[in-house]
Amino acid sequence: MNLQLIKELRERSGAGILDCKNALDESKGEIEKAIIILREKGLADAQKLETRETKEGAIFSYIHQGSKLGVMLELNCETDFVARTEEFKVLGKELCLQIAALNPLYIKPEDIPPEKIEQERNIVRKQFEGQKKPENVLQKIIEGRLSKFYEEICLLNQPYIRDPQKKINDLILESQAKIKEKISISRFIIFRL
Amino acid sequence: MNLQLIKELRERSGAGILDCKNALDESKGEIEKAIIILREKGLADAQKLETRETKEGAIFSYIHQGSKLGVMLELNCETDFVARTEEFKVLGKELCLQIAALNPLYIKPEDIPPEKIEQERNIVRKQFEGQKKPENVLQKIIEGRLSKFYEEICLLNQPYIRDPQKKINDLILESQAKIKEKISISRFIIFRL
Repeated sequence: MNLQLIKELRERSGAGILDCKNALDESKGEIEKAIIILREKGLADAQKLETRETKEGAIFSYIHQGSKLGVMLELNCETDFVARTEEFKVLGKELCLQIAALNPLYIKPEDIPPEKIEQERNIVRKQFEGQKKPENVLQKIIEGRLSKFYEEICLLNQPYIRDPQKKINDLILESQAKIKEKISISRFIIFRL
Repeated sequence: MNLQLIKELRERSGAGILDCKNALDESKGEIEKAIIILREKGLADAQKLETRETKEGAIFSYIHQGSKLGVMLELNCETDFVARTEEFKVLGKELCLQIAALNPLYIKPEDIPPEKIEQERNIVRKQFEGQKKPENVLQKIIEGRLSKFYEEICLLNQPYIRDPQKKINDLILESQAKIKEKISISRFIIFRL
Protein backbone atom coordinates (compact mmCIF):
# COMPACT_ATOMS: atom_id res chain seq x y z
CA MET A 1 0.00 0.00 0.00
CA ASN A 2 1.26 3.44 -0.95
CA LEU A 3 1.82 5.33 2.34
CA GLN A 4 1.90 8.68 0.57
CA LEU A 5 -1.58 7.96 -0.78
CA ILE A 6 -2.90 7.08 2.68
CA LYS A 7 -1.39 10.27 4.05
CA GLU A 8 -3.02 12.37 1.34
CA LEU A 9 -6.37 10.70 1.88
CA ARG A 10 -6.16 11.29 5.62
CA GLU A 11 -5.38 14.95 5.13
CA ARG A 12 -8.21 15.38 2.67
CA SER A 13 -10.79 13.37 4.59
CA GLY A 14 -9.80 13.67 8.22
CA ALA A 15 -10.46 9.94 8.58
CA GLY A 16 -8.29 7.49 10.57
CA ILE A 17 -5.39 5.48 9.09
CA LEU A 18 -7.20 2.16 9.04
CA ASP A 19 -10.33 3.63 7.46
CA CYS A 20 -8.22 5.30 4.78
CA LYS A 21 -6.32 2.09 4.10
CA ASN A 22 -9.56 0.13 3.77
CA ALA A 23 -11.13 2.76 1.52
CA LEU A 24 -8.05 2.76 -0.74
CA ASP A 25 -8.11 -1.05 -0.87
CA GLU A 26 -11.75 -0.87 -1.88
CA SER A 27 -11.14 1.90 -4.46
CA LYS A 28 -8.03 0.09 -5.77
CA GLY A 29 -5.88 3.12 -5.00
CA GLU A 30 -8.13 5.74 -6.59
CA ILE A 31 -8.18 8.61 -4.15
CA GLU A 32 -11.35 10.39 -5.35
CA LYS A 33 -13.28 7.13 -5.19
CA ALA A 34 -11.83 6.45 -1.73
CA ILE A 35 -13.11 9.82 -0.50
CA ILE A 36 -16.61 8.92 -1.73
CA ILE A 37 -16.39 5.55 0.04
CA LEU A 38 -15.38 7.28 3.27
CA ARG A 39 -18.19 9.80 2.94
CA GLU A 40 -20.71 7.06 2.38
CA LYS A 41 -19.52 5.45 5.59
CA GLY A 42 -19.72 8.78 7.39
CA LEU A 43 -15.99 8.74 8.00
CA ALA A 44 -15.08 11.79 5.95
CA ASP A 45 -16.47 15.25 5.96
CA ALA A 46 -17.84 16.98 2.90
CA GLN A 47 -16.23 20.23 3.91
CA LYS A 48 -12.48 20.08 4.26
CA LEU A 49 -11.68 20.18 7.98
CA GLU A 50 -8.67 22.44 7.58
CA THR A 51 -10.78 25.45 6.73
CA ARG A 52 -13.08 25.16 9.72
CA GLU A 53 -12.84 27.34 12.79
CA THR A 54 -12.29 25.88 16.25
CA LYS A 55 -13.58 28.48 18.66
CA GLU A 56 -14.99 26.17 21.29
CA GLY A 57 -13.23 23.59 23.45
CA ALA A 58 -12.04 23.07 26.98
CA ILE A 59 -9.16 23.63 29.37
CA PHE A 60 -7.57 20.48 30.83
CA SER A 61 -4.98 20.04 33.52
CA TYR A 62 -2.96 17.21 34.97
CA ILE A 63 -0.94 17.21 38.18
CA HIS A 64 1.50 14.32 38.37
CA GLN A 65 1.62 12.27 41.57
CA GLY A 66 3.70 14.10 44.15
CA SER A 67 2.58 17.48 42.76
CA LYS A 68 6.00 18.45 41.42
CA LEU A 69 4.85 18.55 37.81
CA GLY A 70 1.74 20.07 36.29
CA VAL A 71 0.39 20.49 32.77
CA MET A 72 -2.38 22.74 31.47
CA LEU A 73 -3.80 22.53 27.97
CA GLU A 74 -6.34 24.33 25.81
CA LEU A 75 -7.93 21.92 23.34
CA ASN A 76 -10.32 23.32 20.77
CA CYS A 77 -13.15 22.05 18.62
CA GLU A 78 -16.00 23.61 16.68
CA THR A 79 -18.97 23.32 19.02
CA ASP A 80 -19.55 23.33 22.75
CA PHE A 81 -21.60 20.17 22.26
CA VAL A 82 -18.52 18.25 21.16
CA ALA A 83 -16.39 19.88 23.88
CA ARG A 84 -18.66 18.21 26.44
CA THR A 85 -18.42 14.71 24.93
CA GLU A 86 -16.54 11.89 26.63
CA GLU A 87 -14.39 11.37 23.51
CA PHE A 88 -13.15 14.96 23.64
CA LYS A 89 -12.50 14.82 27.38
CA VAL A 90 -10.53 11.59 27.03
CA LEU A 91 -8.41 13.15 24.29
CA GLY A 92 -7.73 16.19 26.51
CA LYS A 93 -6.61 13.96 29.36
CA GLU A 94 -4.42 11.83 27.10
CA LEU A 95 -2.72 14.90 25.68
CA CYS A 96 -1.98 16.20 29.19
CA LEU A 97 -0.39 12.86 30.13
CA GLN A 98 1.61 12.88 26.90
CA ILE A 99 2.89 16.40 27.60
CA ALA A 100 3.83 15.49 31.18
CA ALA A 101 5.68 12.37 29.99
CA LEU A 102 7.49 13.67 26.91
CA ASN A 103 7.92 17.32 27.79
CA PRO A 104 7.42 18.95 24.37
CA LEU A 105 8.53 22.55 23.85
CA TYR A 106 6.20 23.46 20.98
CA ILE A 107 2.90 22.34 19.46
CA LYS A 108 4.12 22.04 15.84
CA PRO A 109 7.32 22.65 13.83
CA GLU A 110 6.03 26.03 12.62
CA ASP A 111 6.17 27.24 16.23
CA ILE A 112 9.92 26.66 16.54
CA PRO A 113 11.94 29.89 16.19
CA PRO A 114 13.66 29.78 12.76
CA GLU A 115 17.11 30.35 14.30
CA LYS A 116 16.73 27.15 16.30
CA ILE A 117 16.02 25.18 13.12
CA GLU A 118 18.93 26.91 11.39
CA GLN A 119 21.17 25.85 14.27
CA GLU A 120 20.18 22.21 13.75
CA ARG A 121 20.91 22.50 10.03
CA ASN A 122 24.33 23.95 10.80
CA ILE A 123 25.16 21.15 13.22
CA VAL A 124 24.59 18.58 10.46
CA ARG A 125 26.58 20.64 7.95
CA LYS A 126 29.47 20.84 10.44
CA GLN A 127 29.34 17.08 11.06
CA PHE A 128 29.66 16.28 7.35
CA GLU A 129 32.12 19.06 6.59
CA GLY A 130 35.04 17.89 4.45
CA GLN A 131 33.23 14.68 3.44
CA LYS A 132 32.31 16.24 0.09
CA LYS A 133 28.76 14.85 0.07
CA PRO A 134 26.66 16.05 -2.86
CA GLU A 135 24.29 18.86 -1.81
CA ASN A 136 21.14 16.79 -2.48
CA VAL A 137 22.43 13.98 -0.23
CA LEU A 138 23.30 16.49 2.49
CA GLN A 139 19.81 17.99 2.17
CA LYS A 140 18.27 14.55 2.73
CA ILE A 141 20.42 14.02 5.81
CA ILE A 142 19.39 17.44 7.12
CA GLU A 143 15.71 16.72 6.52
CA GLY A 144 16.08 13.43 8.39
CA ARG A 145 17.76 15.16 11.29
CA LEU A 146 15.09 17.87 11.43
CA SER A 147 12.35 15.28 11.35
CA LYS A 148 13.88 13.61 14.42
CA PHE A 149 14.29 17.01 16.04
CA TYR A 150 10.58 17.74 15.52
CA GLU A 151 9.66 14.36 16.97
CA GLU A 152 11.54 15.28 20.11
CA ILE A 153 10.28 18.78 20.76
CA CYS A 154 6.92 19.17 18.94
CA LEU A 155 3.82 17.68 20.57
CA LEU A 156 2.08 16.85 17.26
CA ASN A 157 5.18 15.07 15.94
CA GLN A 158 5.89 13.10 19.10
CA PRO A 159 5.17 9.37 19.27
CA TYR A 160 2.04 8.71 21.33
CA ILE A 161 3.13 7.26 24.68
CA ARG A 162 0.53 4.46 24.62
CA ASP A 163 1.25 3.45 21.04
CA PRO A 164 4.58 4.78 19.74
CA GLN A 165 3.78 3.71 16.16
CA LYS A 166 1.29 6.54 16.17
CA LYS A 167 2.08 10.23 16.31
CA ILE A 168 0.03 12.66 18.37
CA ASN A 169 -1.16 14.19 15.13
CA ASP A 170 -2.57 10.76 14.15
CA LEU A 171 -4.36 10.58 17.48
CA ILE A 172 -5.99 13.92 16.76
CA LEU A 173 -6.91 12.94 13.20
CA GLU A 174 -8.57 9.81 14.57
CA SER A 175 -10.56 11.81 17.09
CA GLN A 176 -11.57 14.24 14.35
CA ALA A 177 -12.88 11.36 12.26
CA LYS A 178 -14.82 10.04 15.26
CA ILE A 179 -16.38 13.28 16.42
CA LYS A 180 -16.64 14.77 12.92
CA GLU A 181 -15.25 18.12 13.93
CA LYS A 182 -11.93 19.79 13.52
CA ILE A 183 -9.76 19.63 16.67
CA SER A 184 -6.81 21.88 17.42
CA ILE A 185 -4.45 22.51 20.29
CA SER A 186 -3.99 26.20 20.87
CA ARG A 187 -1.59 26.18 23.83
CA PHE A 188 -0.13 24.18 26.66
CA ILE A 189 2.19 24.89 29.55
CA ILE A 190 4.32 22.75 31.86
CA PHE A 191 5.14 23.76 35.44
CA ARG A 192 8.00 21.77 36.93
CA LEU A 193 9.21 22.43 40.45
CA MET B 1 -4.37 49.15 69.29
CA ASN B 2 -1.78 50.62 66.95
CA LEU B 3 -2.24 48.91 63.58
CA GLN B 4 1.19 49.98 62.38
CA LEU B 5 2.71 48.21 65.37
CA ILE B 6 0.79 45.00 64.59
CA LYS B 7 1.92 45.18 60.99
CA GLU B 8 5.56 45.60 62.01
CA LEU B 9 5.33 42.72 64.45
CA ARG B 10 3.77 40.48 61.78
CA GLU B 11 6.51 41.28 59.33
CA ARG B 12 9.22 40.67 61.88
CA SER B 13 7.73 37.52 63.38
CA GLY B 14 5.70 35.96 60.59
CA ALA B 15 2.94 35.33 63.15
CA GLY B 16 -0.79 35.81 62.48
CA ILE B 17 -2.71 39.04 63.20
CA LEU B 18 -4.52 37.78 66.26
CA ASP B 19 -1.37 36.32 67.79
CA CYS B 20 0.45 39.61 67.19
CA LYS B 21 -2.39 41.60 68.72
CA ASN B 22 -2.45 39.38 71.80
CA ALA B 23 1.33 39.51 72.17
CA LEU B 24 1.28 43.32 71.94
CA ASP B 25 -1.53 43.47 74.50
CA GLU B 26 0.55 41.32 76.79
CA SER B 27 3.73 43.36 76.21
CA LYS B 28 1.80 46.64 76.55
CA GLY B 29 2.88 47.70 73.06
CA GLU B 30 6.58 46.93 73.41
CA ILE B 31 7.55 45.24 70.19
CA GLU B 32 10.76 43.51 71.32
CA LYS B 33 8.96 42.04 74.29
CA ALA B 34 6.09 40.95 72.00
CA ILE B 35 8.54 39.06 69.79
CA ILE B 36 9.86 37.20 72.84
CA ILE B 37 6.31 36.34 73.89
CA LEU B 38 5.55 35.00 70.40
CA ARG B 39 8.76 32.96 70.37
CA GLU B 40 7.96 31.47 73.75
CA LYS B 41 4.61 30.40 72.35
CA GLY B 42 6.32 28.99 69.27
CA LEU B 43 4.48 31.48 67.04
CA ALA B 44 7.50 33.40 65.80
CA ASP B 45 10.67 32.18 64.22
CA ALA B 46 14.11 33.01 65.57
CA GLN B 47 15.40 33.42 62.06
CA LYS B 48 13.70 36.08 60.00
CA LEU B 49 11.54 34.31 57.42
CA GLU B 50 12.46 36.70 54.60
CA THR B 51 15.99 35.37 54.32
CA ARG B 52 14.98 31.73 53.98
CA GLU B 53 14.96 29.81 50.74
CA THR B 54 11.80 28.18 49.39
CA LYS B 55 13.01 25.46 47.06
CA GLU B 56 10.30 22.90 47.75
CA GLY B 57 6.56 23.12 47.20
CA ALA B 58 3.88 21.86 44.88
CA ILE B 59 2.03 22.56 41.64
CA PHE B 60 -1.71 23.12 41.94
CA SER B 61 -4.37 23.49 39.30
CA TYR B 62 -8.03 24.37 39.17
CA ILE B 63 -10.43 23.92 36.28
CA HIS B 64 -13.63 25.90 36.69
CA GLN B 65 -16.95 24.16 36.07
CA GLY B 66 -17.60 24.00 32.35
CA SER B 67 -13.85 23.73 31.62
CA LYS B 68 -13.60 27.16 29.98
CA LEU B 69 -11.22 28.53 32.60
CA GLY B 70 -8.15 26.95 34.16
CA VAL B 71 -5.50 28.09 36.62
CA MET B 72 -2.12 26.57 37.42
CA LEU B 73 0.07 27.69 40.31
CA GLU B 74 3.48 26.92 41.77
CA LEU B 75 3.47 27.42 45.53
CA ASN B 76 6.76 27.08 47.39
CA CYS B 77 7.88 26.34 50.91
CA GLU B 78 11.12 25.22 52.54
CA THR B 79 10.69 21.47 52.93
CA ASP B 80 8.92 18.69 51.09
CA PHE B 81 7.46 17.64 54.42
CA VAL B 82 5.47 20.88 54.64
CA ALA B 83 4.56 20.70 50.93
CA ARG B 84 2.71 17.46 51.72
CA THR B 85 0.70 18.85 54.65
CA GLU B 86 -3.03 19.47 54.46
CA GLU B 87 -2.54 23.13 55.46
CA PHE B 88 -0.27 23.74 52.47
CA LYS B 89 -2.57 21.91 50.07
CA VAL B 90 -5.57 23.91 51.26
CA LEU B 91 -3.65 27.15 50.73
CA GLY B 92 -2.71 26.04 47.20
CA LYS B 93 -6.34 25.30 46.37
CA GLU B 94 -7.56 28.58 47.86
CA LEU B 95 -5.02 30.56 45.85
CA CYS B 96 -6.12 28.82 42.63
CA LEU B 97 -9.75 29.73 43.35
CA GLN B 98 -8.73 33.30 44.15
CA ILE B 99 -6.83 33.60 40.86
CA ALA B 100 -9.75 32.14 38.87
CA ALA B 101 -12.16 34.58 40.54
CA LEU B 102 -10.17 37.82 40.54
CA ASN B 103 -7.95 37.30 37.53
CA PRO B 104 -4.70 38.93 38.74
CA LEU B 105 -2.03 39.84 36.20
CA TYR B 106 1.00 39.76 38.49
CA ILE B 107 2.08 38.25 41.81
CA LYS B 108 3.35 41.47 43.44
CA PRO B 109 3.76 45.16 42.54
CA GLU B 110 7.47 44.67 41.79
CA ASP B 111 6.46 42.42 38.88
CA ILE B 112 4.53 45.19 37.10
CA PRO B 113 6.52 46.73 34.22
CA PRO B 114 7.68 50.23 35.36
CA GLU B 115 6.10 51.89 32.31
CA LYS B 116 2.68 50.58 33.36
CA ILE B 117 3.09 52.18 36.79
CA GLU B 118 4.34 55.39 35.18
CA GLN B 119 1.22 55.41 33.00
CA GLU B 120 -1.00 55.25 36.11
CA ARG B 121 0.93 58.13 37.69
CA ASN B 122 0.48 60.20 34.55
CA ILE B 123 -3.26 59.54 34.45
CA VAL B 124 -3.61 61.03 37.95
CA ARG B 125 -1.36 63.97 37.07
CA LYS B 126 -3.50 64.67 34.00
CA GLN B 127 -6.71 64.47 36.05
CA PHE B 128 -5.49 67.10 38.53
CA GLU B 129 -3.77 69.29 35.95
CA GLY B 130 -4.57 72.97 36.38
CA GLN B 131 -5.91 72.45 39.91
CA LYS B 132 -2.59 73.69 41.34
CA LYS B 133 -2.44 71.04 44.08
CA PRO B 134 0.77 71.16 46.13
CA GLU B 135 3.20 68.44 45.01
CA ASN B 136 3.02 66.55 48.35
CA VAL B 137 -0.80 66.37 48.13
CA LEU B 138 -0.57 65.17 44.54
CA GLN B 139 1.97 62.53 45.62
CA LYS B 140 -0.45 61.26 48.25
CA ILE B 141 -3.23 61.03 45.68
CA ILE B 142 -0.92 59.16 43.32
CA GLU B 143 0.12 56.72 46.04
CA GLY B 144 -3.55 56.10 46.84
CA ARG B 145 -4.32 55.45 43.22
CA LEU B 146 -1.37 53.08 42.83
CA SER B 147 -2.37 51.21 45.94
CA LYS B 148 -5.82 50.59 44.41
CA PHE B 149 -4.19 49.64 41.13
CA TYR B 150 -2.05 47.02 42.92
CA GLU B 151 -5.13 45.67 44.69
CA GLU B 152 -6.73 45.08 41.33
CA ILE B 153 -3.93 43.42 39.42
CA CYS B 154 -1.50 41.92 41.99
CA LEU B 155 -2.44 38.62 43.62
CA LEU B 156 -0.73 39.40 46.94
CA ASN B 157 -2.48 42.78 47.18
CA GLN B 158 -5.93 41.50 46.23
CA PRO B 159 -8.66 41.12 48.86
CA TYR B 160 -9.17 37.45 49.75
CA ILE B 161 -12.45 36.32 48.13
CA ARG B 162 -13.67 34.54 51.29
CA ASP B 163 -12.82 37.44 53.62
CA PRO B 164 -12.27 40.73 51.77
CA GLN B 165 -10.94 42.43 54.92
CA LYS B 166 -7.88 40.28 54.45
CA LYS B 167 -5.36 40.52 51.64
CA ILE B 168 -3.86 37.44 50.01
CA ASN B 169 -0.55 38.43 51.55
CA ASP B 170 -2.19 38.22 55.00
CA LEU B 171 -3.47 34.75 54.15
CA ILE B 172 0.07 33.67 53.32
CA LEU B 173 1.51 35.27 56.47
CA GLU B 174 -1.06 33.35 58.51
CA SER B 175 -0.14 30.08 56.85
CA GLN B 176 3.53 30.83 57.42
CA ALA B 177 2.87 31.33 61.10
CA LYS B 178 0.94 28.07 61.25
CA ILE B 179 3.37 25.88 59.36
CA LYS B 180 6.48 27.76 60.57
CA GLU B 181 8.05 27.93 57.17
CA LYS B 182 8.39 30.65 54.61
CA ILE B 183 5.86 30.37 51.76
CA SER B 184 6.19 32.02 48.38
CA ILE B 185 4.33 32.01 45.08
CA SER B 186 6.72 31.69 42.19
CA ARG B 187 4.31 31.72 39.25
CA PHE B 188 0.75 31.23 38.09
CA ILE B 189 -1.03 31.15 34.76
CA ILE B 190 -4.64 31.53 33.65
CA PHE B 191 -6.05 29.84 30.53
CA ARG B 192 -9.36 31.27 29.43
CA LEU B 193 -11.13 29.96 26.36
